[in-house]
Amino acid sequence: MKNIKISLLGLGVVGSKLLDYVRENGSELSRRLEVQLSIDKVFVRDVAKRRAVDVSDLILTNDPYEAVKDGDIVVECLGGSGAQQTREIVLSAIKAQKAVIMSSKKCLALYGREITDAVRENQTYFRYDATVGGCIPVSSVLESMGKCEKINKIYGICNATSNYILDEMQNNSTYASALQKAKEKGFAENDPGDDVDGFDALYKSVILAGFGMGHWIDCDTIAPTSIKSITAEDFCKARQKESAIKPIFSVENKDGRYSCFVGPSAVSRDSILASVKGSNNMIVISSSESGERAFYGQGAGAKPTASAMFDDLVKTIKEIRH
Amino acid sequence: MKNIKISLLGLGVVGSKLLDYVRENGSELSRRLEVQLSIDKVFVRDVAKRRAVDVSDLILTNDPYEAVKDGDIVVECLGGSGAQQTREIVLSAIKAQKAVIMSSKKCLALYGREITDAVRENQTYFRYDATVGGCIPVSSVLESMGKCEKINKIYGICNATSNYILDEMQNNSTYASALQKAKEKGFAENDPGDDVDGFDALYKSVILAGFGMGHWIDCDTIAPTSIKSITAEDFCKARQKESAIKPIFSVENKDGRYSCFVGPSAVSRDSILASVKGSNNMIVISSSESGERAFYGQGAGAKPTASAMFDDLVKTIKEIRH
Repeated sequence: MKNIKISLLGLGVVGSKLLDYVRENGSELSRRLEVQLSIDKVFVRDVAKRRAVDVSDLILTNDPYEAVKDGDIVVECLGGSGAQQTREIVLSAIKAQKAVIMSSKKCLALYGREITDAVRENQTYFRYDATVGGCIPVSSVLESMGKCEKINKIYGICNATSNYILDEMQNNSTYASALQKAKEKGFAENDPGDDVDGFDALYKSVILAGFGMGHWIDCDTIAPTSIKSITAEDFCKARQKESAIKPIFSVENKDGRYSCFVGPSAVSRDSILASVKGSNNMIVISSSESGERAFYGQGAGAKPTASAMFDDLVKTIKEIRH
Repeated sequence: MKNIKISLLGLGVVGSKLLDYVRENGSELSRRLEVQLSIDKVFVRDVAKRRAVDVSDLILTNDPYEAVKDGDIVVECLGGSGAQQTREIVLSAIKAQKAVIMSSKKCLALYGREITDAVRENQTYFRYDATVGGCIPVSSVLESMGKCEKINKIYGICNATSNYILDEMQNNSTYASALQKAKEKGFAENDPGDDVDGFDALYKSVILAGFGMGHWIDCDTIAPTSIKSITAEDFCKARQKESAIKPIFSVENKDGRYSCFVGPSAVSRDSILASVKGSNNMIVISSSESGERAFYGQGAGAKPTASAMFDDLVKTIKEIRH
């Protein structure tokens, strides 16, 4: 029976939840996949910090390279900040032929071409489902569907914070009170800049285009529109036209020319995108033979994100166990 | 390089379209997956019949067992009639350890437990994506997602004919004229009984519960409600309540007790199900950690169905090539 060791990078809300799932399901998974699964080392910035999750049986280290060294699968839950450091850790793991599961979308969007090139060159395994669409199994969908067709366009709603705020404003909240409510509900971070100004959605658009269309867009070439640009008058006009204003992203391939848009747009009240409420996401994939397919689910929260990473973990174990 | 031979059962609209896809993409697929892919024999009821698709380089036979004999992958496109004969052919192929890709939902719903038991006993490969949800990659979704969670409920809209007819009736058509229009658009068969009376949706519900929840419901124990039971007054009432009447299916697991409903129901105009128009389907999967996830796409037509089967073919080749 093959030993498979997991290196866990980061023990924030997502990393801790993932640890729960591995502890709850690890032995059943080991039995079913005929492997011996264990958590090897865990990288945290502060080893001494008190934590909500039990770490008594874990080896914590504040050296990410030490955490990666003996693992077979590196699970990155480092969060949004420090994209440059995350890139270095991830690339070093790939070059050491570790399988890597990522969750940091900013890092993947900025360095996606370099990372996927390294994966190919080092013939290792890589998964990224938690970087985009929360619990929507979008990486499995992209890699398993449409083998006889061409994806022309990927669009939809991929930012829970902005979608929640615009929905509240539609119901006559001000931007400030909607943002406050989003923070109270855990749908907005203390610094919501990346979400409301569209950069978070831009990163996800870039990742979807990278894996779905094989084209890595340079983030610096796209200027997203902030939802702060929307006024009460815009909502009034939209209502008169039986429309709703939603935070839309769109990447399109027209004969090899790629365009990308991120910003608030009016959509018909009867459209599938208008039905996406609160913290949910919807990713629509338009392709040559099957037309439009859409994938919907919670876009935020530790449970859906960690569940997506656990599924990535299962798929990775299946690939490397032999 | 391994030779992989496909036995194709049936050359109707779906089988013919699939043949197109294999011809267009087969050599690229062979190269990428490092196999030698070929169509071995094709079962048709009438060998002499003139066909829209070129069959000059194919071996046609009216003996299904002859068609299956030398193939590695059996692709079943036999359509709705003859579920008992389809069962026999499929079971004989599984017992001969062929990989099988099915499209006939009635057969799979009626004999799903027997078929999946045979697949397990004979340690072969089986895929069924074309039986439910048209081009929605639902089998991949079910087998790849939620490994650390429990699926409690699967529901939604999975009959394009009924959905189209109810949408038309919502806009003041009579049942008869809506059905006529559906036929003209290719969304309804000459005998639409299985669709409008809910049996088609029942078969799909049973398949989703079988693969998603591991429980095979006996079709005979569930009585679907026909959409013909809906009156103009029902639509009027629904409109007053800002609702729409949609053809809903639902399978629920409450602590090991399974319930199944198929029939027209009112849903809020702002819900995701209300946004599913015309010939589209939506399958909603509700699970313990991730809440509701929904999958949407065209539910009818040769192209989406054959594309789903082509994806099944690619996955099967990946499994059996070594």
